[in-house]
Amino acid sequence: MSDTEYHRRLGIGQPAFEGLEELLEHRNYEGLEYRHVPDYRRGIERGTVLIDGEVVRGFPKVPRTLVLSTGVPTHFDDHGCDRIVVEEKVNGYNVRVARIGGDILAVSRSGIVCPFTTRMLERLVDLESVFEEYPRAMLCGEMVGPENPYTAHDYPGVDSLAFRAFDWRDRESGEPLAVDERRERYDSFDVPQTRSFGRYPVDEAAEIRALVDDLDADGREGVVMKSPDGTAQLKYTTSASNRGDLAYAFSLPFDYGQPFMFRRLLREAFQSVEWDESDADARERAHELGEAILLSMRETIRTVEAGDSVGERHTVRAGPETVDVLLEHLRGQGLQIEIEDDRREDGDRVCTFCKRTQSTNDKTRNYLEGHVVQE
Amino acid sequence: MSDTEYHRRLGIGQPAFEGLEELLEHRNYEGLEYRHVPDYRRGIERGTVLIDGEVVRGFPKVPRTLVLSTGVPTHFDDHGCDRIVVEEKVNGYNVRVARIGGDILAVSRSGIVCPFTTRMLERLVDLESVFEEYPRAMLCGEMVGPENPYTAHDYPGVDSLAFRAFDWRDRESGEPLAVDERRERYDSFDVPQTRSFGRYPVDEAAEIRALVDDLDADGREGVVMKSPDGTAQLKYTTSASNRGDLAYAFSLPFDYGQPFMFRRLLREAFQSVEWDESDADARERAHELGEAILLSMRETIRTVEAGDSVGERHTVRAGPETVDVLLEHLRGQGLQIEIEDDRREDGDRVCTFCKRTQSTNDKTRNYLEGHVVQE
Repeated sequence: MSDTEYHRRLGIGQPAFEGLEELLEHRNYEGLEYRHVPDYRRGIERGTVLIDGEVVRGFPKVPRTLVLSTGVPTHFDDHGCDRIVVEEKVNGYNVRVARIGGDILAVSRSGIVCPFTTRMLERLVDLESVFEEYPRAMLCGEMVGPENPYTAHDYPGVDSLAFRAFDWRDRESGEPLAVDERRERYDSFDVPQTRSFGRYPVDEAAEIRALVDDLDADGREGVVMKSPDGTAQLKYTTSASNRGDLAYAFSLPFDYGQPFMFRRLLREAFQSVEWDESDADARERAHELGEAILLSMRETIRTVEAGDSVGERHTVRAGPETVDVLLEHLRGQGLQIEIEDDRREDGDRVCTFCKRTQSTNDKTRNYLEGHVVQE
Repeated sequence: MSDTEYHRRLGIGQPAFEGLEELLEHRNYEGLEYRHVPDYRRGIERGTVLIDGEVVRGFPKVPRTLVLSTGVPTHFDDHGCDRIVVEEKVNGYNVRVARIGGDILAVSRSGIVCPFTTRMLERLVDLESVFEEYPRAMLCGEMVGPENPYTAHDYPGVDSLAFRAFDWRDRESGEPLAVDERRERYDSFDVPQTRSFGRYPVDEAAEIRALVDDLDADGREGVVMKSPDGTAQLKYTTSASNRGDLAYAFSLPFDYGQPFMFRRLLREAFQSVEWDESDADARERAHELGEAILLSMRETIRTVEAGDSVGERHTVRAGPETVDVLLEHLRGQGLQIEIEDDRREDGDRVCTFCKRTQSTNDKTRNYLEGHVVQE
């Protein structure tokens, strides 16, 4: 297809498309050339893919509020709705699924076709009939569970990996279905979805807090609030999620950005104030926060001191060929992968590997060896 | 004086000086034009001042180790010394004092002539006789005590403000005196100095740790270790200091840089590992760290929520004219100063003012009002 057609499909002018084109990254999925938008650009979502003459629109950024009681009404008043649907935000990795030239492909948040997810989806959920009926669909969901190569997190009932749909959009325009319609449609195809907590009045955020408290107690991530038409979204996370992120980030302190850490500290402080915590409760929160930070770094420094290396450790369970293409895919992105365990179970390959985080290993070792800091 | 002469005084070539010149900031102190180096530049120290044909060399950056047992030998081996002098690092603001055209001027770390410090030094310590004998001297020290406009910190025996010398250098070349000679010289002029803890073998850092423990228990900042000839320096701080900095920075979270915070978290983690803390002790450290972070932010958010504003609060006690020129000086630097209390005591003016930290006030209020975050 000519680029003239791409710019029409994206709904932008020819000059705007030419500006975008320079920023596109070129990739190849099993012989099929494609391009994607690696960063947010004015007008075009990050993760948008141009492939085989088709467009797979990026998943929009979901804004966050630090304060429920004011953020919810402020955000949704702008969208003219007085009731919102609250759904569970789950902790995994975002995936968009679309059918391109007959193949059902899974695309990562940033717009990379993931060979692992593409193959695993086939095993986990039957999407053929969905695309037969809705060829322009873009199914948006989260891959959750302990055995995945990107974000491993336990969920009751998920032993290895599972797909949880949370949105349904037009592949090209990015327009979402209304929430009720989307839920019914997925149900009719037996596709599992994230939990819905139902509708809440926009000005009764106190009830949403009760939900967040329950999710927090279960170690779950948080909620996504949506306008009933699906166009407006807002997220809010639990303290458990913030602390979990902090512990993980501070276990690899030189590989995670300081803004990543800082934002999560802020969320905790605003939540403590909004929850109107007693001094004792705030102190308790502070202690858990401190442990997430310091004990994680301590563990990492001690690991490096003992001569071992640290990194992001993942286990995947899949067919042997799927594991092969996954490892090749990760290495192709420049990651240094070390296989730590590799065995067969019931015909599957169960592989534990470590993505070496070079900065944390190197800098921690340097400091331990007495390198001085010029600051 | 012509710039040709400045480049000779700085010991650099004419082209290098021309490169430097573009980066110099121009200022004026009571009618006297001068220029200073606001940032570290290759070869020329930050804070170097060109004034009235003279050079006041910047105070060199003091490197830091995160690990005493390896950092001390590594750093000082490079300087070929097997014993070091350990002195107390005090928490105040760095000042260099030099005589220029007959006037004794106090220069800040970044090279700004501080009218407050210049006037207060006259009251606090007699430096006339020092400069009579050593006109090229650059006296380097810290202004400490609770009543100062930059870094207020309590020290036993210091009610308001005091000068503590810790170095003596040639004003133009920046060459230091040997430590013993410097200490004797200051003593002979009755100029107060930071405490010396004496000499330690480079490879017995364990003894320095005992010093740091004592300083930590007293809520003091730390140590500066020096080669006996004064040319090599290395610093190390207590947990009390790291936590104090964190509490202060997180009370103004949007005005302090994330690298500032991150560095202090790191120091705590490396210290915990080097001290070989038990799990219980590390947990206790983590709790205090968490409190420094979260309780400070909570206090700030609650202050803003209550409609008050936050900022850096200082009290100074000085002659009325000195307070006037200080406030004018701070406002001249673009700071927004609000006088909160202003009274006379024994002929002095005792003034409490707040440097408004705009970002923290504005952003905290925005988030409280429900502005969403795009991250």
